[in-house]
Amino acid sequence: MKILITGGAGFIGSNLAHALRRNTYFKTDELTVVDNLSLGKKKFISSLIDDKKFFFYKTDLLNFHSLLKIFKRHKFDLVWHLSANSDIGYGARFTDWDLKQGTVATYNVLECMRRIGTKKIIFSSSSAVLGEAEKMPTPEQYGPLCPISFYGASKLACEGLLTSFSHNFGFQVWIFRFGNIVGRNSTHGAIYDFIKKLKKNPRSLEVLGDGTQSKPYLSVDDCVEGMVYGFKHSKNKVNLYNLACEGSTSVSKIAKNVVRNVNPGAKIQYTGGKRGWRGDVAKVRLDTKNMKALGWVAKCTSDQAVDKAITDLVH
Amino acid sequence: MKILITGGAGFIGSNLAHALRRNTYFKTDELTVVDNLSLGKKKFISSLIDDKKFFFYKTDLLNFHSLLKIFKRHKFDLVWHLSANSDIGYGARFTDWDLKQGTVATYNVLECMRRIGTKKIIFSSSSAVLGEAEKMPTPEQYGPLCPISFYGASKLACEGLLTSFSHNFGFQVWIFRFGNIVGRNSTHGAIYDFIKKLKKNPRSLEVLGDGTQSKPYLSVDDCVEGMVYGFKHSKNKVNLYNLACEGSTSVSKIAKNVVRNVNPGAKIQYTGGKRGWRGDVAKVRLDTKNMKALGWVAKCTSDQAVDKAITDLVH
Repeated sequence: MKILITGGAGFIGSNLAHALRRNTYFKTDELTVVDNLSLGKKKFISSLIDDKKFFFYKTDLLNFHSLLKIFKRHKFDLVWHLSANSDIGYGARFTDWDLKQGTVATYNVLECMRRIGTKKIIFSSSSAVLGEAEKMPTPEQYGPLCPISFYGASKLACEGLLTSFSHNFGFQVWIFRFGNIVGRNSTHGAIYDFIKKLKKNPRSLEVLGDGTQSKPYLSVDDCVEGMVYGFKHSKNKVNLYNLACEGSTSVSKIAKNVVRNVNPGAKIQYTGGKRGWRGDVAKVRLDTKNMKALGWVAKCTSDQAVDKAITDLVH
Repeated sequence: MKILITGGAGFIGSNLAHALRRNTYFKTDELTVVDNLSLGKKKFISSLIDDKKFFFYKTDLLNFHSLLKIFKRHKFDLVWHLSANSDIGYGARFTDWDLKQGTVATYNVLECMRRIGTKKIIFSSSSAVLGEAEKMPTPEQYGPLCPISFYGASKLACEGLLTSFSHNFGFQVWIFRFGNIVGRNSTHGAIYDFIKKLKKNPRSLEVLGDGTQSKPYLSVDDCVEGMVYGFKHSKNKVNLYNLACEGSTSVSKIAKNVVRNVNPGAKIQYTGGKRGWRGDVAKVRLDTKNMKALGWVAKCTSDQAVDKAITDLVH
């Protein structure tokens, strides 16, 4: 199978790339990564560069003609589309950022697939499409979807583009709505930010919000494994799943854990307010019964995933 | 109140413009129409042109700077955003058409509002966001939303943009998911197409699909009145309603009715197949209990709306 990973030098993409080249899950004949390196880092995939069946292109998905050339050259069987802006707060300051980096970029990927004849795509959507759901844990069947961030709006727009391309051109699509993902190579998120802040100022850690925000944190290994499992075990035209773990972890718990690992004497200071930033959904719980029905559960609980991620990132 | 109607020279927009200038529902101090006249027609609003409190701009919503100038000049209190591509089949041939004319155009409208300080927007969404719903009649709470047309994907993307702008910048938004709307000044749809075809070839009427497609047809007067009613009677930050009538009408019934009115001797020929075109949702039923709970019901049933529309359009 010839696979493209967009955002493949990023957090989840680089973890996936390594797993695929190890042929952990199925035979990957050829693996291509496209990344504009705005968030991704070349060092995350440097150990793969010498591999003759691995190809890397520093390309922006908004550059349609460059992207189409890559599609023409490799004629992918499967696209793993992970590229996106992951800084939700940034989208509230530059309101067209997610529209371009998320919605238009995704359209470009889908249109390249259509022109070349690639028919399968796996897409990283997000619980952010839900907005502030009234029902928790929230199932895939929840509506109406009223995202409160431009990131969430863009992920919702992408879901619609995927299902439309599927219906009109026979694509088979797998959409996974992630909770928060944590682990090695992360480039954003609470754990990453807290460690960075504490290394800069070891005496005090500023935490955005009141610390009561709580979400399910999924380890990146479980995330990669879950996507592969869903891809292998669901065969509809449109396959849509929440991808999350049992339980949740509060932001204050994460802050205390990071402090304990980096500098036990540091004081934690909360900026206050229910949210960390505009567009932050303070409480997320995802119903994972549909992935369970396929036979998959995350190996780590939320707290275990957070512990492991802190250890991996601090040391 | 100073009001902008985008797509105000189009089908629903022109009917709305006339109702607002008559001050049918509330006092409209100033009414502005922006339309690129790609589907809309100047003759639909020609009787308003001499009105000193009416302004018309032939502008494309994709021209952000022209649009912003209009916003700066008029400082609208309310935007009635009706502009969109209404030819669903066209979107399957030119896959970026709805992305541009729907999603990006809507982003431009919202961003102009943010820059100028306009805080209220009424938006015409569509049952097309639902795709092929398993539950009928379909309530607003239905999920997941898997649109099968680029038109539906774009309307879904717009809904997410509206709710994001609402949360981040304090906008108040009214989203109405329309079924099919029929009546005077229509520029597309089964009734319009059938009359046009029969006038060209009076002996035979070709109908796309097998004729069993059936949908709720709402009269454009009920549509305008329903939006105004919803706007006046719901005051949340995000207000989302299905806007439809009781019952439904089949395409074959519409075809027979048009034939009877235009040329009773004409033969009806069906192209066959469940759908009229790629992306056509063959069966739509919208649950209207939320509009009912506000105190609104359509005056005409679906069949009555169809009858009246055919009479208005033929004669």
